[in-house]
Amino acid sequence: MSLFSQKLPSRKKNYSDWYNALIKAARLAEPSFAKGSMVMLEDGFKIWEAIQGGLDKKIKETGHNNVYFPMLIPVSLFSREASHIAGFAPECAVVTHYRLQQSGKGEIKVDPDAKLDVPLVVRPTSEAIIWPHFSKWIQSYRDLPILINQWANVVRWEMRTRAFLRTSEFLWQEGHTAHASAEEAKEETMKMLNVYIKFLKEEMAMPVIAGQKTVQEQFSGAEATYTIEGLMQDGKALQLGTSHFLGQNFAKALGVTFSNEKGEAVHPWGTSWGVTTRLMGGLIMTHGDDQGLIIPPKLAPHQVVIIPIPTEERYQEAVLAKVDWFAEELKAAGVRVKLDNSNRHQPGWKFNHYECKGVPLRVVVGSRDIVQDTVELVRRDTHEKVTIRVVELIEKVKELLTAIQENLYNRALQRQKEATREVTTFADFQEIIKRERGFILAHWDGTTATELAIKEATQATIRCIPFAQEPIPGNCIYSGKPTTKRALFAIAY
Amino acid sequence: MSLFSQKLPSRKKNYSDWYNALIKAARLAEPSFAKGSMVMLEDGFKIWEAIQGGLDKKIKETGHNNVYFPMLIPVSLFSREASHIAGFAPECAVVTHYRLQQSGKGEIKVDPDAKLDVPLVVRPTSEAIIWPHFSKWIQSYRDLPILINQWANVVRWEMRTRAFLRTSEFLWQEGHTAHASAEEAKEETMKMLNVYIKFLKEEMAMPVIAGQKTVQEQFSGAEATYTIEGLMQDGKALQLGTSHFLGQNFAKALGVTFSNEKGEAVHPWGTSWGVTTRLMGGLIMTHGDDQGLIIPPKLAPHQVVIIPIPTEERYQEAVLAKVDWFAEELKAAGVRVKLDNSNRHQPGWKFNHYECKGVPLRVVVGSRDIVQDTVELVRRDTHEKVTIRVVELIEKVKELLTAIQENLYNRALQRQKEATREVTTFADFQEIIKRERGFILAHWDGTTATELAIKEATQATIRCIPFAQEPIPGNCIYSGKPTTKRALFAIAY
Repeated sequence: MSLFSQKLPSRKKNYSDWYNALIKAARLAEPSFAKGSMVMLEDGFKIWEAIQGGLDKKIKETGHNNVYFPMLIPVSLFSREASHIAGFAPECAVVTHYRLQQSGKGEIKVDPDAKLDVPLVVRPTSEAIIWPHFSKWIQSYRDLPILINQWANVVRWEMRTRAFLRTSEFLWQEGHTAHASAEEAKEETMKMLNVYIKFLKEEMAMPVIAGQKTVQEQFSGAEATYTIEGLMQDGKALQLGTSHFLGQNFAKALGVTFSNEKGEAVHPWGTSWGVTTRLMGGLIMTHGDDQGLIIPPKLAPHQVVIIPIPTEERYQEAVLAKVDWFAEELKAAGVRVKLDNSNRHQPGWKFNHYECKGVPLRVVVGSRDIVQDTVELVRRDTHEKVTIRVVELIEKVKELLTAIQENLYNRALQRQKEATREVTTFADFQEIIKRERGFILAHWDGTTATELAIKEATQATIRCIPFAQEPIPGNCIYSGKPTTKRALFAIAY
Repeated sequence: MSLFSQKLPSRKKNYSDWYNALIKAARLAEPSFAKGSMVMLEDGFKIWEAIQGGLDKKIKETGHNNVYFPMLIPVSLFSREASHIAGFAPECAVVTHYRLQQSGKGEIKVDPDAKLDVPLVVRPTSEAIIWPHFSKWIQSYRDLPILINQWANVVRWEMRTRAFLRTSEFLWQEGHTAHASAEEAKEETMKMLNVYIKFLKEEMAMPVIAGQKTVQEQFSGAEATYTIEGLMQDGKALQLGTSHFLGQNFAKALGVTFSNEKGEAVHPWGTSWGVTTRLMGGLIMTHGDDQGLIIPPKLAPHQVVIIPIPTEERYQEAVLAKVDWFAEELKAAGVRVKLDNSNRHQPGWKFNHYECKGVPLRVVVGSRDIVQDTVELVRRDTHEKVTIRVVELIEKVKELLTAIQENLYNRALQRQKEATREVTTFADFQEIIKRERGFILAHWDGTTATELAIKEATQATIRCIPFAQEPIPGNCIYSGKPTTKRALFAIAY
């Protein structure tokens, strides 16, 4: 069952093969039977639970409560907001029947007599079912804001799928809010984008570039979509989360109004925002190396693995007693510890195994450590080894976990900075995209025509218009038209 | 939006109306648009999160890890275990298409060109998708046991639906395990049933009767189903959780084998076990009264609500300062507190509001309390009021929360005991079912024919064969045949 004796393909040689092999070797997920579907396995799901738990806390701290809406949406409701349906119709799984039947020969098929009058769409997102409920909840400005979130599964029928990055069914959280003013809704949109940025930075050690999507790339039904974009080690961008200002679009489409303080009937303003199990893919591709996964300590189900080295009989008992004691001490100090003292595998196998699994720090105890009252620590991120005195253990482990967390962020940020290039000619643009990819910051004339022409020519898309840019006059790299707007381009997952 | 000025229907008059009105008034859930679907609202979902959090901990403590399997199961896989498909086929929602299309007139319909070759069943339970993966994971006895759980949504197309008790989509946890011996699998089945019993008793304050289901009532695909049955205040039973010994059924149907220590190929033995959002319905119907919900303190999102009484101006500031201080002190002491010092409603409205919501304990502060340095506590379960000195606050609050938790369990247990009757004649049986319902313990000849005849005549079903019964010789109340087996009958939800 184990792949740890095998090497992963190197990232340089084939990033995509490396990614798939890592997921398999670390047993994070495996393909399932329906097209584009996967199983999240125990060790993969533990990381997702850490992400979910951490983010759920922050979503609640910002005043949102969790709810649960039905997964099946009558198509009649689904089709109310025109651009929403136009965007999602091509990728909807649809329930049309509510019964199977067994034929005489024992064959199972859909019972034609159990056809639904109104087909039910498996939610690709929940605005279409949530806003009709908002219309019941909202009468007065006193009922606003509504601030809710749900953790749910959604289905989007994708043609080209890939573990974590793009699966027909995925898990996510989707926040949905309604407000009495456009300003408040816009503020909410940005607040939640910032919650994502902070969480990715502080817990997942992942730097992103944030900005606004172009009209071409925005959420179907939104007035504006804001995004956080990460850069993977192969120079491709990964959209990691989005936050949408819905304006009054859904409120108008579903006839939702409230009476404001002056007693006038007004449509409320909406937002929605979400991140998905795709974050798992981003985590793997941001931090992983040719030995496997590297999990940032704050997120790691096990921060430390302790491995005893089998040794001459006279030291064996002392080694085993010591690792037990270390495990107890570290647990008591609040460190999440895995002690692997099993006999089933040799230390070398274990080293590879926990490296592949991404455990941030390894603690090794052998006979020399017994004699010298020392212990060896090995960092997963740098492979650095250090031998310390036993009395320093807890202090040093905590120090290294902090250092690993910081280093993972800093080196990802460094990589992102180095791979973000300002470009003024389309020739350079094409050259960079061909040679090394990465983020390209370039002047853009603001038209969809240019955006699509660049995509056609290079496969690169506008990931966002980054925030907080000084308006620098220049010429669109494609059309040559003068513009002060710069867009962030990349080839994206 | 609020119903708190209205009274709930009394339980005695119409239990079913009371139940529905309570859910609406306490804003736990509301009906949604697709048939038999509901939205779990913020205050309802908070209780579910408490249940989920508490139970998840116990499931992990017993060695299980969470995973996530796809929701859509190819019908070809679903139909492999014969009795499983026979049981679930009549209630399966089926995805047959993966795209919608917009007609010229803007009408949305299912795209006939996007028909799936193999229809996908929305999981009613996940054995059919999990066991094919088990077959990949299991080669040797060293790969066993597999101990996994998932929190998920499932769909069972029900004709008569009811909030929390029976909805077409519901949330649940489903544990799935595979073992190298029948004994170990049986032990697991009982272990998890006991986890449920303990959790319901200690956290939810709900007593149950545990036992084995008859063949007629067992899970489709199981060799034996064990159940926990609660008794609601209207004398009807509610099945609250089940644990199934699957024998080798799924392993055989899906060709799963492992090589045992002797190197022989053997089919592993399986279990599955689950509880659902139905627990919410059980909680409401076990503890609720004519004022609304009562949430056991261990589960309550807010254990205490603090309400200041508006008073003459010279005391007003002192009252508000005091409630702030109490809230801080109680929070610091680990009590989950809600302070309602808003001006929007009068104290009477607030009293009713938080009673309806089920907050276990109310803390009230008025001008007299300022003068006398006292505070009033009101228990939700007994409506008892007690005025205490401020210095006693934390101690007394903790004491009362413990007392409420215990009282809720004890009175539910008392009610269950009083409503459980041993009956020796079918005339008595019918009389009791007609008059007051409850649990009836009676001799049964063990045949499905008798079981169905009793159901036909009285609507009562066998809820279980309770554990730990002394075999008492007697005659089947229906057929008169001699038997030592006694079954627990009731009319069930």
